[in-house]
Amino acid sequence: MACDPPPRGFPATEFEARTARAQAMMADAGLKAMLVLTEPEVRYFTGFLTPFWQSPTRPWFTVIPERGKPVAVIPAIGAECMARTWIDDIRTWSSPCPEDEGVSLLAETLREVTGGNGAVGLPMGPETALRMSLNDFHRLGDILAPMPFRDASPIIRTLRMTKTDAEIGKIRHICGVLSGVFQTLPAHLSMGMSEIDIFRTFKMLSLDAGADDVAYLVGGLGEGGYGDIISPPSERETQRGDVLILDTGASFDGYFCDFDRNYVFGETTDAAKRAHDVVWQATEAGLAAARPGNTCADLFNAMQRVMDAGGAMGNDVGRLGHGLGMQLTEWPSNTPTDMTVLKPGMVITLEPGMTFAEGKVMVHEENIVIRDGEPELLSRRAPANMPVIG
Amino acid sequence: MACDPPPRGFPATEFEARTARAQAMMADAGLKAMLVLTEPEVRYFTGFLTPFWQSPTRPWFTVIPERGKPVAVIPAIGAECMARTWIDDIRTWSSPCPEDEGVSLLAETLREVTGGNGAVGLPMGPETALRMSLNDFHRLGDILAPMPFRDASPIIRTLRMTKTDAEIGKIRHICGVLSGVFQTLPAHLSMGMSEIDIFRTFKMLSLDAGADDVAYLVGGLGEGGYGDIISPPSERETQRGDVLILDTGASFDGYFCDFDRNYVFGETTDAAKRAHDVVWQATEAGLAAARPGNTCADLFNAMQRVMDAGGAMGNDVGRLGHGLGMQLTEWPSNTPTDMTVLKPGMVITLEPGMTFAEGKVMVHEENIVIRDGEPELLSRRAPANMPVIG
Repeated sequence: MACDPPPRGFPATEFEARTARAQAMMADAGLKAMLVLTEPEVRYFTGFLTPFWQSPTRPWFTVIPERGKPVAVIPAIGAECMARTWIDDIRTWSSPCPEDEGVSLLAETLREVTGGNGAVGLPMGPETALRMSLNDFHRLGDILAPMPFRDASPIIRTLRMTKTDAEIGKIRHICGVLSGVFQTLPAHLSMGMSEIDIFRTFKMLSLDAGADDVAYLVGGLGEGGYGDIISPPSERETQRGDVLILDTGASFDGYFCDFDRNYVFGETTDAAKRAHDVVWQATEAGLAAARPGNTCADLFNAMQRVMDAGGAMGNDVGRLGHGLGMQLTEWPSNTPTDMTVLKPGMVITLEPGMTFAEGKVMVHEENIVIRDGEPELLSRRAPANMPVIG
Repeated sequence: MACDPPPRGFPATEFEARTARAQAMMADAGLKAMLVLTEPEVRYFTGFLTPFWQSPTRPWFTVIPERGKPVAVIPAIGAECMARTWIDDIRTWSSPCPEDEGVSLLAETLREVTGGNGAVGLPMGPETALRMSLNDFHRLGDILAPMPFRDASPIIRTLRMTKTDAEIGKIRHICGVLSGVFQTLPAHLSMGMSEIDIFRTFKMLSLDAGADDVAYLVGGLGEGGYGDIISPPSERETQRGDVLILDTGASFDGYFCDFDRNYVFGETTDAAKRAHDVVWQATEAGLAAARPGNTCADLFNAMQRVMDAGGAMGNDVGRLGHGLGMQLTEWPSNTPTDMTVLKPGMVITLEPGMTFAEGKVMVHEENIVIRDGEPELLSRRAPANMPVIG
């Protein structure tokens, strides 16, 4: 392992501060309560960390009142795990219970904390989802009527976009662990290995190096370049002339890294090498533009200019990086229209990518923290030239 | 690896059959089209398999028309991956685009396939979620008005609940791989290892044995028994007298196993051993009741009777097993009120669990396929006595 991992979990003061910031924004927005029901949001306010969310059976609710600690309204199976967090008020129902899957208990809780009137905030904007059935959501609305739900996604987005030192410490750790894995990877790969075996090897190395999970691993492999970067691995075996990209979101204590590295098997085309140089230089331009006060659009423009000059033929990814933290990707996006202003403590990926020939793309990615002055690199800067395997 | 893995993917005939079954049920329900937007449903109809769903940024839509193949309405980043499936009609937008995140393209597609009138099915019932923002969903409704959305979850549930031989082959494979891992695990564990190290070891062994991913791993560890089974691992080190449970959902080609095993460090209490015997015997009763024509409630009752006789003090899990396949947990649930009738081809977990002392639970789980006559065990039957480590 690269270095000692930071402590797991957070002190209660972290959650107190999150809740207080939320409550200040709720007051400004005229909200009497806020309801969250997705994994990162529930975890953000409570510290509740479990892979059990992968089961779609049960909804989980957390209510942030005007004052005081959040209230957990959850299936009984989660009571003991939630009791180990800083939350005191844990209300449970026996689940699964399709006839009343927590809806009446949640309605009662919302009535109680709001006094039965005033608006309830709920994330309803971009990048959100409703992690309960629409039927139950409509039933909840009927029970609470005329209490309106109002979009609280701007509050959640503002809260989560800037990270604390404790959060950054976890992301720095997993970035360091994976940087080491990417560096030693060539010694573990050989010509003729299948994509599936490469993925398996990468995941095992990552776990061994200290990752809790390698939930996200995608890649591309192809002669002289790859075609897309979101596919699972195939049985195709590596051949001389192949370019390989691995793009991973590994996690430590619920916080993600998200970066990629490119490799060459034997040798490859000049076009692929040039394309790698272009995206590497575009990242340099992104690093230079990553200053407080600049916008995500500025980051996009700085990187895109280098790629346009380098012969870019477009980009299907739709952005050149994004926020990072409790999720593999978070708000904001480095697009021409995202005017989010960079602030110290924001964790961002710089991900220039471009099509450089028919059906061939080249993507590169680093993880940084916006700081006063120069950004802090969390991933160890990729080598300027693609490492050669075999 | 236990044995050769089955082929990856499915022939087009599998998707044709799924679509035809869906369309027959849609006709019966008076639906002109069906819209799905969650990972398993999109994959069920298209074969689109990617971990990219972990990014919450972009919605993905699939429209099943009255006749003909499904239509994919997806972000451009997925076009190449989707083009490798059996789908021909792939419509893309450049994403992220919060101003119009695919909504107008989806509305246009739904208008086209329905002729502008008639109801559109959408899963809105238990265990479903809306994987797009509520704001966008309301905007979609406004554009399409007066075309109504109607709950299509009974259709999806019926379709997915019974598996084909090809699907069962993938589940059987991953169950076999993990059965082997559980059997050899004691040789890799030792007294004093931390929970975190045990989890890491288990994941590496599973990958090495042939799992594509070990997305789900939870466990419990405690002297004379554990308290809950959904927590992530802690830094606590194993001691003589501990009981350990590991419960895993590993996957192969997008299909899951979901079962657990219990172990003893050194020796443990008679109460814990008795409790293990009770849940093991309860599983036997579940196996005996797992016959076509019986209901999930029958499975529950058969297992619960054994646990009641064995001194069970309740169960926070809320059910004694569930469906299994493309997700870690699927419909139905083994509860006293689930009257789902068992049919050949249904893949089910039998998961008797009980509190046997203050704060101590014991859980056991096997994976089976309902067959004419006796069920087929997919997981290798657990030993009647907990294996001893150290």
